[in-house]
Amino acid sequence: MTNSTTKRNEMKKLEKKIRRFIKERNWEKFHAPKNLAMALSVETAELVEIFQWMDAKESRTLDAATLKHLEEEIGDIMIYLTTLAKHFGLDPLSAAHKKILLNEKKYPLDGSIDL
Amino acid sequence: MTNSTTKRNEMKKLEKKIRRFIKERNWEKFHAPKNLAMALSVETAELVEIFQWMDAKESRTLDAATLKHLEEEIGDIMIYLTTLAKHFGLDPLSAAHKKILLNEKKYPLDGSIDL
Amino acid sequence: MTNSTTKRNEMKKLEKKIRRFIKERNWEKFHAPKNLAMALSVETAELVEIFQWMDAKESRTLDAATLKHLEEEIGDIMIYLTTLAKHFGLDPLSAAHKKILLNEKKYPLDGSIDL
Amino acid sequence: MTNSTTKRNEMKKLEKKIRRFIKERNWEKFHAPKNLAMALSVETAELVEIFQWMDAKESRTLDAATLKHLEEEIGDIMIYLTTLAKHFGLDPLSAAHKKILLNEKKYPLDGSIDL
Repeated sequence: MTNSTTKRNEMKKLEKKIRRFIKERNWEKFHAPKNLAMALSVETAELVEIFQWMDAKESRTLDAATLKHLEEEIGDIMIYLTTLAKHFGLDPLSAAHKKILLNEKKYPLDGSIDL
Repeated sequence: MTNSTTKRNEMKKLEKKIRRFIKERNWEKFHAPKNLAMALSVETAELVEIFQWMDAKESRTLDAATLKHLEEEIGDIMIYLTTLAKHFGLDPLSAAHKKILLNEKKYPLDGSIDL
Repeated sequence: MTNSTTKRNEMKKLEKKIRRFIKERNWEKFHAPKNLAMALSVETAELVEIFQWMDAKESRTLDAATLKHLEEEIGDIMIYLTTLAKHFGLDPLSAAHKKILLNEKKYPLDGSIDL
Repeated sequence: MTNSTTKRNEMKKLEKKIRRFIKERNWEKFHAPKNLAMALSVETAELVEIFQWMDAKESRTLDAATLKHLEEEIGDIMIYLTTLAKHFGLDPLSAAHKKILLNEKKYPLDGSIDL
């Protein structure tokens, strides 16, 4: 099995679960990409809220309840990100791999910044 | 290979790539979870910006250049989301699967809403 | 002149300037409240970006160029906030005064939190 | 009374009210500009949430309860924006006036875009 196939399979499993969840509730009508982008930003802000009054050091170690909350927000973000990506035949995992390649060119190791 | 192992492996591949990228540039010092949360929200806004003046219908079909831009923003979001999650031993793919289970309880199929 | 009249006058001056700017460019058609909310969040993220890699202490003192940049982002946020509020006959200055009254009830001085 | 003095006075009244509210609760210690920027983005997302599933047309007319909610979010945003600006001797109203001047140069009326 190639990496690419595995990756696609893993993302496909999540995509399929999300699609079923949405379909069962008849929520497709709400999911124009514009709306999904807004929902994604709202979920991201709920994650930001966890850290807003902490200083950098405090943010490195969370108690159990806050960690559980964080994981739920990460889950929400990943669900909307995957749903939005899927609309355009994309997936977050592949997009991240591609973006790292671009970033390696943008920020080469010799220390210069290639904007 | 179990699903869980595969998933972990797929996420691990991305985590490893990200960690190497950060380490090579000596950027760990910037990556307090608080800062990563802010960076995540900035990248999310760059995705939102793509859709801000479109109406819902227009947002469903993007031209090739905009689609490429969108994939890059999805990649950036996934990179920061994975980096933040990894700090706490979490990963976005597992968090999404767990969250769907919670959402199924929160929004049961009989139409009632269980808040 | 009552406080309320003065305030209304000051906000009205800004509202009028904004309205003329938008009208001259024929941009009203883009300014559905949904779109303005998105634009507001994009501008807010541009302000967040200024502070994302600073620690709390560094964020307290900005160099002249960054301060100029910050003022521009504050201006952009205020412009969109005022445009959105105006659509509904509201204004940010009055809304802030009202909200402080609510907050004083929500967070009374005896230290209890009244949610 | 010059415009500038009036404006300063109106903003000063709000600034003073906010400062007293914060001081009485001993919250200054939380208000590093970095934290205020995060809080501002969280409040903005709460405003975005109001509009996320509406289409553009629906967003133009809100029922009374939603309008009340919107005004509260506008108030929260204005409070944090003013608190952050004040830290640097700035204010949102003046910043907006200055930014309109810049925008008039950036988007001149002959239709060309001066980036």
